[in-house]
Amino acid sequence: MAGVLRPGSHRATDVADDGAVVAAMLCVEVAWAKALVAAGVATEAEAAKVAEAAAGLDVDLDALAVAAEAAGNPVVPLVGLLREAAGDAAGAVHRGLTSQDVLDSALVLLARDAVVRLRAHLVATGDALASLARTHRDDVAVARTLTQWAVPTTFGLRAAQWLAGVDDAVARLDALSFPVQYGGAAGTRALLAELAGPGADAAAPALAAALGLADALPWHTRRAAVTAIADALVAATDALGVLAADVLLLGRPEIAEVREGAAEGRGGSSTMPHKQNPVLSVLVNAAAQQAPGLAAQLHLAAAGAVDERPDGAWHAEWPAFARLLELAVTAGSQAAELVAGLQVDASAMAARVAVATEAGALDARGGTGEAGRLVDLAVARWERRHA
Amino acid sequence: MAGVLRPGSHRATDVADDGAVVAAMLCVEVAWAKALVAAGVATEAEAAKVAEAAAGLDVDLDALAVAAEAAGNPVVPLVGLLREAAGDAAGAVHRGLTSQDVLDSALVLLARDAVVRLRAHLVATGDALASLARTHRDDVAVARTLTQWAVPTTFGLRAAQWLAGVDDAVARLDALSFPVQYGGAAGTRALLAELAGPGADAAAPALAAALGLADALPWHTRRAAVTAIADALVAATDALGVLAADVLLLGRPEIAEVREGAAEGRGGSSTMPHKQNPVLSVLVNAAAQQAPGLAAQLHLAAAGAVDERPDGAWHAEWPAFARLLELAVTAGSQAAELVAGLQVDASAMAARVAVATEAGALDARGGTGEAGRLVDLAVARWERRHA
Amino acid sequence: MAGVLRPGSHRATDVADDGAVVAAMLCVEVAWAKALVAAGVATEAEAAKVAEAAAGLDVDLDALAVAAEAAGNPVVPLVGLLREAAGDAAGAVHRGLTSQDVLDSALVLLARDAVVRLRAHLVATGDALASLARTHRDDVAVARTLTQWAVPTTFGLRAAQWLAGVDDAVARLDALSFPVQYGGAAGTRALLAELAGPGADAAAPALAAALGLADALPWHTRRAAVTAIADALVAATDALGVLAADVLLLGRPEIAEVREGAAEGRGGSSTMPHKQNPVLSVLVNAAAQQAPGLAAQLHLAAAGAVDERPDGAWHAEWPAFARLLELAVTAGSQAAELVAGLQVDASAMAARVAVATEAGALDARGGTGEAGRLVDLAVARWERRHA
Amino acid sequence: MAGVLRPGSHRATDVADDGAVVAAMLCVEVAWAKALVAAGVATEAEAAKVAEAAAGLDVDLDALAVAAEAAGNPVVPLVGLLREAAGDAAGAVHRGLTSQDVLDSALVLLARDAVVRLRAHLVATGDALASLARTHRDDVAVARTLTQWAVPTTFGLRAAQWLAGVDDAVARLDALSFPVQYGGAAGTRALLAELAGPGADAAAPALAAALGLADALPWHTRRAAVTAIADALVAATDALGVLAADVLLLGRPEIAEVREGAAEGRGGSSTMPHKQNPVLSVLVNAAAQQAPGLAAQLHLAAAGAVDERPDGAWHAEWPAFARLLELAVTAGSQAAELVAGLQVDASAMAARVAVATEAGALDARGGTGEAGRLVDLAVARWERRHA
Repeated sequence: MAGVLRPGSHRATDVADDGAVVAAMLCVEVAWAKALVAAGVATEAEAAKVAEAAAGLDVDLDALAVAAEAAGNPVVPLVGLLREAAGDAAGAVHRGLTSQDVLDSALVLLARDAVVRLRAHLVATGDALASLARTHRDDVAVARTLTQWAVPTTFGLRAAQWLAGVDDAVARLDALSFPVQYGGAAGTRALLAELAGPGADAAAPALAAALGLADALPWHTRRAAVTAIADALVAATDALGVLAADVLLLGRPEIAEVREGAAEGRGGSSTMPHKQNPVLSVLVNAAAQQAPGLAAQLHLAAAGAVDERPDGAWHAEWPAFARLLELAVTAGSQAAELVAGLQVDASAMAARVAVATEAGALDARGGTGEAGRLVDLAVARWERRHA
Repeated sequence: MAGVLRPGSHRATDVADDGAVVAAMLCVEVAWAKALVAAGVATEAEAAKVAEAAAGLDVDLDALAVAAEAAGNPVVPLVGLLREAAGDAAGAVHRGLTSQDVLDSALVLLARDAVVRLRAHLVATGDALASLARTHRDDVAVARTLTQWAVPTTFGLRAAQWLAGVDDAVARLDALSFPVQYGGAAGTRALLAELAGPGADAAAPALAAALGLADALPWHTRRAAVTAIADALVAATDALGVLAADVLLLGRPEIAEVREGAAEGRGGSSTMPHKQNPVLSVLVNAAAQQAPGLAAQLHLAAAGAVDERPDGAWHAEWPAFARLLELAVTAGSQAAELVAGLQVDASAMAARVAVATEAGALDARGGTGEAGRLVDLAVARWERRHA
Repeated sequence: MAGVLRPGSHRATDVADDGAVVAAMLCVEVAWAKALVAAGVATEAEAAKVAEAAAGLDVDLDALAVAAEAAGNPVVPLVGLLREAAGDAAGAVHRGLTSQDVLDSALVLLARDAVVRLRAHLVATGDALASLARTHRDDVAVARTLTQWAVPTTFGLRAAQWLAGVDDAVARLDALSFPVQYGGAAGTRALLAELAGPGADAAAPALAAALGLADALPWHTRRAAVTAIADALVAATDALGVLAADVLLLGRPEIAEVREGAAEGRGGSSTMPHKQNPVLSVLVNAAAQQAPGLAAQLHLAAAGAVDERPDGAWHAEWPAFARLLELAVTAGSQAAELVAGLQVDASAMAARVAVATEAGALDARGGTGEAGRLVDLAVARWERRHA
Repeated sequence: MAGVLRPGSHRATDVADDGAVVAAMLCVEVAWAKALVAAGVATEAEAAKVAEAAAGLDVDLDALAVAAEAAGNPVVPLVGLLREAAGDAAGAVHRGLTSQDVLDSALVLLARDAVVRLRAHLVATGDALASLARTHRDDVAVARTLTQWAVPTTFGLRAAQWLAGVDDAVARLDALSFPVQYGGAAGTRALLAELAGPGADAAAPALAAALGLADALPWHTRRAAVTAIADALVAATDALGVLAADVLLLGRPEIAEVREGAAEGRGGSSTMPHKQNPVLSVLVNAAAQQAPGLAAQLHLAAAGAVDERPDGAWHAEWPAFARLLELAVTAGSQAAELVAGLQVDASAMAARVAVATEAGALDARGGTGEAGRLVDLAVARWERRHA
């Protein structure tokens, strides 16, 4: 794993690193062998042998990476290894499939799993935020607009807004679809059609079922599934990022209304022993600044997915997509831990309201208005969906 | 309007130009006066006067733009003008509202209308593509992967893939929600709560109803509605962009399998009378290259929406959002016209298949495989949804 | 002008709006007529007539924008108008030139003028910062890392760092080159070569001289000049953005170490009379968040500048480039005003150092170290270059 | 290494992977020990022990990556390891330095080395292009604008334009500066000033000299050096990207004017034995689509480098910068190989000119104009600088 310059990425081990990518590609090849059985052009025994070969395959990742350049993608050399390992079932390996089928489906598998992991982190985050919102429902605090004190609000409402943001993000993840990719050499599924005749119709649903993905038209040049996933991941890092950025502001020593929880050995400085750095907030904030550009990269690739397989746009997707999966899962895990440990100083908030009022710098005519009711609405919405 | 460097933007007049923005803001202020009636703190007569004042307001856009800097946004000076025009109903103007409520709701109004316009263009585009897919269902063509000839496909399947892309894009637009923004000074709705007591609850639904938007929690610092709209617009330009890029490739004189329809006075060169440039395709292609960065801008702003109103992130949204609305509507209109006029040369495609086969450069073992069936599925899906 | 959603853009009127673009294109056409004289294929009288026609041309910008779509760019219809106005000198209009020559050269002209304006704003900003750095050279303040108090520094050093950032930005602008574009239909300068024979060599230098641009090889498909300008503009908004973001943090009421100067009618709130919003800082901060995406757009276009004129990448440059010019000049003007009016509260800074020290939250072992010397170095560097 | 989804990244091993980052950080720590000697606060013996400890350090990269999260960056745990290894010289390790000094300087070291490698690839590319330009100086070809045939040009001029693009890119690399970062805890260099008194002045130049970097004011919050490097790398990938994109277009079977050289085992298809994919061009094209977003990420971080160390913007730089270094070196290496092996079919070009002329689709009035002279200019410029 490593990831010296991507602190926290160990939280996302197996999400989309080299080993995970290879495992997912093998998973697709194994599922495909089963699909060939469904289509009537391979035997159960062959499929079993392919599965066995895949399970036993010891892939030299470095060598595969090198070979991926010559082939233009890592599927070609991996298929070579798998065929070799499959012995007399070699003919059933990758038959009628194309590299893009394998890599696209593999990346969707990884995305699906990453979304599951991210969703769990978001739910944990949301649960903790709901609890904060309830606890501090009526704890008054200064609302700030354009950096300046404005009117009173409550910390409960602030937590409720963070919660609603997480709620939106979960809803967006839940709306995603994870389609299998199967088109054959250029989207016509021709080779299998030739081999299997009418039985060929069974292959796509069988592949989808074996992988737990949705059956779909080939989408080799329609990348909406990829970009929809990316957009939803960024919507999640947006929601977490604003939370982290707020914690960073509210945790400044001059404000000191919240504080990132301390953990053994975390947040120390290399030179200043007195310091406690809000490390999780910093890293989540940093993640939120990185994610939008990665999704934009995927949209650009989508817009350039020409011909029946594009000459670069597809390849430009891979690192951005893998990195976005890792980043989102990492940030989700960090945010969940951040919120779980968040220390809230309601009395500091109340004291600040008093100071600001005294200074004539707070327009308190309306009190906290509907803040309580809005908290209740946000919490109820969350509980209805996630209790 | 103008837009000398944004060719085709006249197709999107009133989508999000200065006049449209001002009109939408006034629309929100008028609706708010009605909401105040519902909340019991303004009279029908006052609301009528506000409406009348707004209708009669002759806003000097240049002066408003200048004043928008001093105020930090254009709402403050516009409210000043409206109050002046409202005479003794001035007290009912903008009462309990904040600038962000007005501008956010106004931009959502514009977005909703832009989405309606874009959707119509997409449906027109899809209908034309469905027709192309049916017509050329079995017209064989060379499929190209990584620029090289690969296997046979049909032009019908290519059109069906474009169609499915448009279909996906429409589905994404249809899933959007357009929430009203109402939070008051800092999201607590305090002033109206103070003025109206329990009646204050009626204001948000009334505002939403008057504008035809969805009622919602305040979302001043949760920008998921904005980014979801942006993402869907980019998904649309992605789909149109790949179509345009394919047309540009297939319309190269060496390939000449399709050709952008000629129109009187379009596509001429300033120096070369013999040339006919594929102008619509070029502009749609260009749009698709611009849209992703604009949406990324909005996501970055979303991740930075700190405090109860951020100190720059909100302001950074405005030009990107307005531009994206204009760009998507323009590209939609251009694409619809492009597809309607597309000239398809099936015999050139067939001839190329023959050449490629002869050259041993086409793997025709499987024929066109399931191409026909896939066309039927894509067309049926479209018709089911859009007939 | 207007620009309701781009507050402050009136500071950049004529930088790259429709009128300015048309004026610059006419400027190129007039200069080209002179170049034709130098090449021996037009007469002085013809060139004078072209100049006169251009000077008198009353261009309907809306109509031109509409026509720009049919032609694919605004040059074609503008040349039509100019030829009409030029009477019997019509033959000397645009002879041997192509649309891209005109539009590229025009945008470089606009860029050069924008850079001059931006540079002046940066120099004013730098002068004010140098003064702040000197004045507060030894005024101690708390240094903050990762939001937390760290060690003492001086406000002078903070100002000196802002200054050094502006200094870097000016240096980057000064390193720019502004090349004329002249390639003819496809970069071979063929038509003029045919007309003028050996005299054709004189055209490019004459065009460059007439416009005050650098002579250059045709660069229609090498966009490094455009991206270098864009990069330098972003480097400037980066430097101004960090300054604005620091001012926003230090001006928070809980910190209150600096304060954006008040101006009559600026920074008011639509609902809260007590508020004074740091409007200039907010807008400069917002600009700095927008600029990087615009430059990225230009680099993407550069990477896609295929053939002898690309099919969309060139067109995708125009709005991004124009917007970036406007944005940078606006931000420069706002920053200069911001710094000129900045109110610094050195006693608040000193008080905070005392508080932090008392709290054991400041590592003051080394005092302010070399802060004073570093201030002197930064100021001396500035003065050496800009006094 | 691996890099299964980043084909070709083995060409950039050691550019910025985990091991290289750690090695560079150790390099900075060792140089700093020497700087401490120069400043009079460490002995030669201590510096030697630190160097020995660093040389012998066997860093568990995975463990370091995990520890980097707790510390917020990888320097803190690495310093711990180094101190442990340094025995009684532990006190001289990292004394007076801060994490950012180490990481920033380390990344500049890596950047400098990456630029050297990239430059060598660009020079090799340029030399090959100069040779192509000379060889095909007068080989006529069709120039294409907006995808359509326009006028004649020469392949020599096309190669010369690619060459000029590479030449520009080299010039941009050559203008870069690689400054050492040394500011201490918060940019004041306080601790060493306290320890060393006037001798402290010697530390920064000594550090710079030991690393071969430029001495500089602390730039912890002025990121112009980072963004300038990034911009120059993107300028390089832009130039290579347009070359690759042109090769992809010209190498389409319908055009077939150039062809990527075949290499044993490269460009094969997983399903279609007859195919030869232009793998290098595809990957360079893909790289050029990825680089701009990475540089934009760095500019955004630069604009957000608040306080004396920012709370996320700095951290957001690391993966983007490392990835950009890897990407640019990889693309440079691939492009050099691509150009070296490029097969040019001048007779196919000539035949196409004949066809286009026959079809009345080429405006050949001016012949190839100044193409030859422009080739000579571009080649001479290259040779003057690089012979």
